[in-house]
Amino acid sequence: MKSDVEIAQQATLRPIGELAEELGLSTDEYEPYGHTKAKISLAVLERLKDKPDGKLILCTGINPTAAGEGKTTTNVGLSMALNRIGKRAMTTIREPSLGPSFGMKGGAAGGGYAQVVPMEDINLHFTGDFHAITSAHNLLAALLDNSIHQGNPLNINPKRITWPRVLDMNDRALRNIVIGLGKVGDGVVRESGFEITVASEIMAALCLATGIEDLKERFGRMIVGYTYDKKPVTAGDLGAPGAMALLMKDAVRPNLVQTLENTPAIIHGGPFANIAHGNNSVVATQTALKLSDYVITEAGFGADLGAEKFFDIVCPAGGLTPDAVVVVATVRALKLNGGKDKKELTNEDLFALGAGVVNLEQHLENLAKFGVPALVALNRFPSDTDAELDLVRQRCEALGVKVVLSEVFAKGGAGGEDMAHAVVELCEQESNYAPLYDVEDEMHAKIETIAREIYRADGVDLAPTAATQLGQIKADGYGSLPICMAKTQYSFSDDPTRLGAPRGFRITVRELVVNAGAGFVVALTGDIMRMPGLPRVPAAVGMDISDDGTITGLS
Amino acid sequence: MKSDVEIAQQATLRPIGELAEELGLSTDEYEPYGHTKAKISLAVLERLKDKPDGKLILCTGINPTAAGEGKTTTNVGLSMALNRIGKRAMTTIREPSLGPSFGMKGGAAGGGYAQVVPMEDINLHFTGDFHAITSAHNLLAALLDNSIHQGNPLNINPKRITWPRVLDMNDRALRNIVIGLGKVGDGVVRESGFEITVASEIMAALCLATGIEDLKERFGRMIVGYTYDKKPVTAGDLGAPGAMALLMKDAVRPNLVQTLENTPAIIHGGPFANIAHGNNSVVATQTALKLSDYVITEAGFGADLGAEKFFDIVCPAGGLTPDAVVVVATVRALKLNGGKDKKELTNEDLFALGAGVVNLEQHLENLAKFGVPALVALNRFPSDTDAELDLVRQRCEALGVKVVLSEVFAKGGAGGEDMAHAVVELCEQESNYAPLYDVEDEMHAKIETIAREIYRADGVDLAPTAATQLGQIKADGYGSLPICMAKTQYSFSDDPTRLGAPRGFRITVRELVVNAGAGFVVALTGDIMRMPGLPRVPAAVGMDISDDGTITGLS
Repeated sequence: MKSDVEIAQQATLRPIGELAEELGLSTDEYEPYGHTKAKISLAVLERLKDKPDGKLILCTGINPTAAGEGKTTTNVGLSMALNRIGKRAMTTIREPSLGPSFGMKGGAAGGGYAQVVPMEDINLHFTGDFHAITSAHNLLAALLDNSIHQGNPLNINPKRITWPRVLDMNDRALRNIVIGLGKVGDGVVRESGFEITVASEIMAALCLATGIEDLKERFGRMIVGYTYDKKPVTAGDLGAPGAMALLMKDAVRPNLVQTLENTPAIIHGGPFANIAHGNNSVVATQTALKLSDYVITEAGFGADLGAEKFFDIVCPAGGLTPDAVVVVATVRALKLNGGKDKKELTNEDLFALGAGVVNLEQHLENLAKFGVPALVALNRFPSDTDAELDLVRQRCEALGVKVVLSEVFAKGGAGGEDMAHAVVELCEQESNYAPLYDVEDEMHAKIETIAREIYRADGVDLAPTAATQLGQIKADGYGSLPICMAKTQYSFSDDPTRLGAPRGFRITVRELVVNAGAGFVVALTGDIMRMPGLPRVPAAVGMDISDDGTITGLS
Repeated sequence: MKSDVEIAQQATLRPIGELAEELGLSTDEYEPYGHTKAKISLAVLERLKDKPDGKLILCTGINPTAAGEGKTTTNVGLSMALNRIGKRAMTTIREPSLGPSFGMKGGAAGGGYAQVVPMEDINLHFTGDFHAITSAHNLLAALLDNSIHQGNPLNINPKRITWPRVLDMNDRALRNIVIGLGKVGDGVVRESGFEITVASEIMAALCLATGIEDLKERFGRMIVGYTYDKKPVTAGDLGAPGAMALLMKDAVRPNLVQTLENTPAIIHGGPFANIAHGNNSVVATQTALKLSDYVITEAGFGADLGAEKFFDIVCPAGGLTPDAVVVVATVRALKLNGGKDKKELTNEDLFALGAGVVNLEQHLENLAKFGVPALVALNRFPSDTDAELDLVRQRCEALGVKVVLSEVFAKGGAGGEDMAHAVVELCEQESNYAPLYDVEDEMHAKIETIAREIYRADGVDLAPTAATQLGQIKADGYGSLPICMAKTQYSFSDDPTRLGAPRGFRITVRELVVNAGAGFVVALTGDIMRMPGLPRVPAAVGMDISDDGTITGLS
């Protein structure tokens, strides 16, 4: 089979203006970025505010494994399949991060015959949203260090600065640095570091904001550090929000592209799922809901993290009411969850599969707690046997959940028609969506609820640092923010090696961090890497572009 | 009078597609970025390769002073004025750097009624060219540090790394840093630093490259450091050029915008004039020369730096043959050059003016050495008296150079009609353009030629470091590269306080740096700031954008 970039480069793309017009957008309501990308004005939401929303389908998955699940591929393929069976559907997904493309991670625009295009642009600079975030983030950092250098009128304690700098590049050497060395005009010496741009709180805030004014207010609340007497210092105190918002004036608008089958797709925002909520922007989803009848949106990692945050953080922030959930799984990944060796996944193994399917079952039980109807999409691989597929089907049906097979990677929309029909049917069922907890609950109790109900932990322990922070957070008035869990994506527990559906464990929260601008409190359960590194042979070394624009090595 | 951003926001812009079509571009040959910006394909140069070029006019100036000269304003105004008198003219200028906009520098898109628009976009992210450079530059830095971290197969000496990282932000705290701190996986500890993006060698290379293949070859030659046995290590050795070129695939194409009077303008590239050549890209100028009959391009700083580099580096690289030079001056700046106090520049002072006009005279004499006809454009201020204007006129006419008055700041193109007629006339004269020196001359001799002929120094001294480097440069085979002088812009000498036309001084070259990718050797005559800082009250603090998109505080 051809590589993703070969398939993408051979696609025939429609002019983006035609797609925009078919969606009912006027020339004033979109701005072309080249002939196949566009930004959609937020004025559309105002114009269509009385139009009923389409159906909202969340695409989530089992805990990710090295075997790969194909969540974005399924998401994109489902939107194409829905269009094939005569529905007006759109997918909304996250923008990929540029930096990791040069390390070892593939792009994040789907795969095979279920991609959004132009994939090479989407995986590189796209419409510049991430660069805008990098600029706004680093402007705030420069203003902060400059304020200390210029006499420190805000009494900021350089040892209590929490705002790092960011770059959209995998650069391990920048994780821990000392800045401000040199001569008297070269700033104040202190320890600091760079994180990857997607980890910026600005990214999380962008994806929850309803517009530029809301975003500016969120900037104003962002905590950059603390004074010598431990009072929070915000971006607002530094006079930064206006200039930051100016830098974000275009980035705040969702991006319109298309799938390989020319159906419209919106790609906007991409918060680092490790420490933020891992969903595309709410304005992207809101816009798609006004422009089409079925909207598939995606949540990062497994449903224990991605779906939980979507239901408990994103939907309340965006006023969204999901109608259905598609849980993506593969037989291979379930066998891995059941203890099968990674190298033997192509061999039939009903024992390992039976042991691993408990992971899927727990996710399905969890999703029922949010009151939204669900189905399982098995992303089919050639090595899957009928007996294996039957086993998964039986186990899910015992929970009242239908299983459909998806072959969109190899066949495009045609490989997802069964799935599309099942999704349409599912959306006819009543959804009784409700968040898992009340944000007004006590903060420790909110974390306990997530840990017990979703992870099936026996309880939550706060490390001494976290316990101190909990008191401070309540004292500073942030007690009513929702929780954003930062936990390994590989396990329901906080131990990445415990696959399947572990029991008999407790969750330890090491640290609590207020993201006042994004509007949540991050509960860190382990060391979270916020700046990836490059491998021994980086993907960059195999990349090229010729004079005629032919690209190789990008995936 | 209104502020620049007010004037710009009240302008009626024409759809960029209309302008592109009027220039004869097909839909395939330009890509819109929003409704008022576009990128022009380099395929245009191939299609029109047999079409005769238009006339090429260099816009340069006297040594810059705190009084301001308005070079970009004159450049933009002249293109509008030429169109008013019935000529097909375009301006090509540099892209402004985003970072400094938040410090204290105004934007660089002209001023008053002689601006290119949309100025707020041009002064912010524009079409993302600078972000692409930042990404490509920092990818190379990450690959370099990663190579050392992963066993250092290239035997790179961490103490001899010359490739910094870059950000488009004024951030003094990043000038001198220590990177690679932390744990065993966090890279190798070493001293390093960030420079501003415009100082990147990638910027200089972009502005001299003829296309993506040429740019990739330039990347391959870029020196990032030296081995333990002092051999140069290049980006090519690290396998970086393909991925870097991929990141630059859009940035390599010139940007089409318009003036306030809707005449087409090309803005592309903006090398840091302090250490590079300070001209827009050669592909921008070449494209404009194919699309119009008169092209005005601009050189950074005074003619001693900007024009010299344009004639000696840029024209040979781009195969350009300039037809005329416009030297921008103001009565105020000339009085400052003659010793007048900055606060008294609005008072008539023929003595100070007479003493200061020597600066202009020396530039005119110098320009004659390149064989290109010149005129002086006096950017008129309300305080200029007739006697003062007469004095400048007489002194220039004594050198056979015509003086015209420009009022484009206050009146737009209508304020530049005299200038436009004079420029048309000047272009009818024969140009005998030739570079000042032969690149095959010995390197010290090339520097001597520039210092004696242009600066009027008595000679050039090499500091011990520079002398050692000179030997190494010749041994490494870089002796035939042209020279790029890094000297204070405020004086012909290397002492910024010596205004006018100083005599009786020598130039000391402290360091010689090979920019093998850009294709020149930088001769540093003093400490050059490569990363600006923010002032006590940064411009950012006064900036804002409202929900309806109204921008304040950007200049």
